[in-house]
Amino acid sequence: MTHPTFVVHHLERSRSTRVLWALEELGLPYTLKVHKRHPKTMRAGPEIKAIHPVGRFPVLTVDGVALAESGAILDTLADDHADGRLKPAAGEALRRYRYWLHFAEGSLMAPLLVALIMDQVRGPAVPFFVRPVTGMIAKSVNGSYTWPQLADLLPPADAAVAGGGWFAGADFTMADIQMSYGVMAALARVPGADKYRNLADWVARVEARPAFQKAVEVGGPVLLG
Amino acid sequence: MTHPTFVVHHLERSRSTRVLWALEELGLPYTLKVHKRHPKTMRAGPEIKAIHPVGRFPVLTVDGVALAESGAILDTLADDHADGRLKPAAGEALRRYRYWLHFAEGSLMAPLLVALIMDQVRGPAVPFFVRPVTGMIAKSVNGSYTWPQLADLLPPADAAVAGGGWFAGADFTMADIQMSYGVMAALARVPGADKYRNLADWVARVEARPAFQKAVEVGGPVLLG
Repeated sequence: MTHPTFVVHHLERSRSTRVLWALEELGLPYTLKVHKRHPKTMRAGPEIKAIHPVGRFPVLTVDGVALAESGAILDTLADDHADGRLKPAAGEALRRYRYWLHFAEGSLMAPLLVALIMDQVRGPAVPFFVRPVTGMIAKSVNGSYTWPQLADLLPPADAAVAGGGWFAGADFTMADIQMSYGVMAALARVPGADKYRNLADWVARVEARPAFQKAVEVGGPVLLG
Repeated sequence: MTHPTFVVHHLERSRSTRVLWALEELGLPYTLKVHKRHPKTMRAGPEIKAIHPVGRFPVLTVDGVALAESGAILDTLADDHADGRLKPAAGEALRRYRYWLHFAEGSLMAPLLVALIMDQVRGPAVPFFVRPVTGMIAKSVNGSYTWPQLADLLPPADAAVAGGGWFAGADFTMADIQMSYGVMAALARVPGADKYRNLADWVARVEARPAFQKAVEVGGPVLLG
């Protein structure tokens, strides 16, 4: 069987590991282009804009056509290149698949991003004489927005994977791949997140998958720092 | 033709106007449940958690089954209740549809949310003697994150709707509905956004649609403040 030519533009330590992982799950051959973060800004350079105008990672080219947005890439791979794998065909499982596919970036990432920004706001780069104020601001934003949001979002995610299941139900799907970055970041960074035992067990099941291990082997660790 | 029973749980002045608008575009009858924001916190109360465990808006129930996440709701309506309308069947238009459907919440909303939080950080509720510091923080976060992000994200969106088109191409789709909140918020709030003439023209085309007008008539204005 001949496949299209897949090229993954991957940013080290980023959400783009998900696309490598999806291709590994499907057994599809691809070329990997690794883009480095600038050691000071931690951002990638602008050269990715020649591949896709928005200039963010990941970008997957399929026979030269550039796809972006992780959720759109994973859903496209499931529909066009998976022979019915990794996406439920209908019913409750498809409803759950769609929900978590959008939830990952549409709901979960926003408070995680704000938490990261607040770490910068009160961080060591801030002059010592303003740190009482910056610490107060970070505490206030996290207390009124970040932690209450995550206290709404994480328990239903934890419940969704109770009993050894996956986000769409009994079968592993692209929704699990899409949820991986946010769940791993939440468990690593959110105070008290060790109470989400089902999510921790789900991460252990993820890490046991050979395709995930291969993606990390070729793309590097998922999380920054 | 009999339809399923649709109930929209709508939060005033929020992204949930999009679901009303989609149902109006499809001519599907629905029951509207309007939820008010608390006058101080501007948040909704917890009663929506009885309908959907995550407790966020919008929620659409279809014969009693609760759907959430705007992108997932719109894509489900397109697949199951639209007779082929508002979603391209294949090809380049479907690729564009998927991209903008995910971009709206996956990329565009994060910097807009951070801009709103920074408005709070330097806002009038902050004691006057710390305002020089809070103003400096807001300027620093917006200068290093918010405005550079939006300067990457908005030009390709502007280019996508040049020449009187829609986000997926020549035809209006759910991707336009999904993009509406972020584009309207960006044009209203981002300094210098009046340069995005194609997006402003696209908003004018949106506002001319009878279904959009009906959604605003029954659901109220889209943006806060």
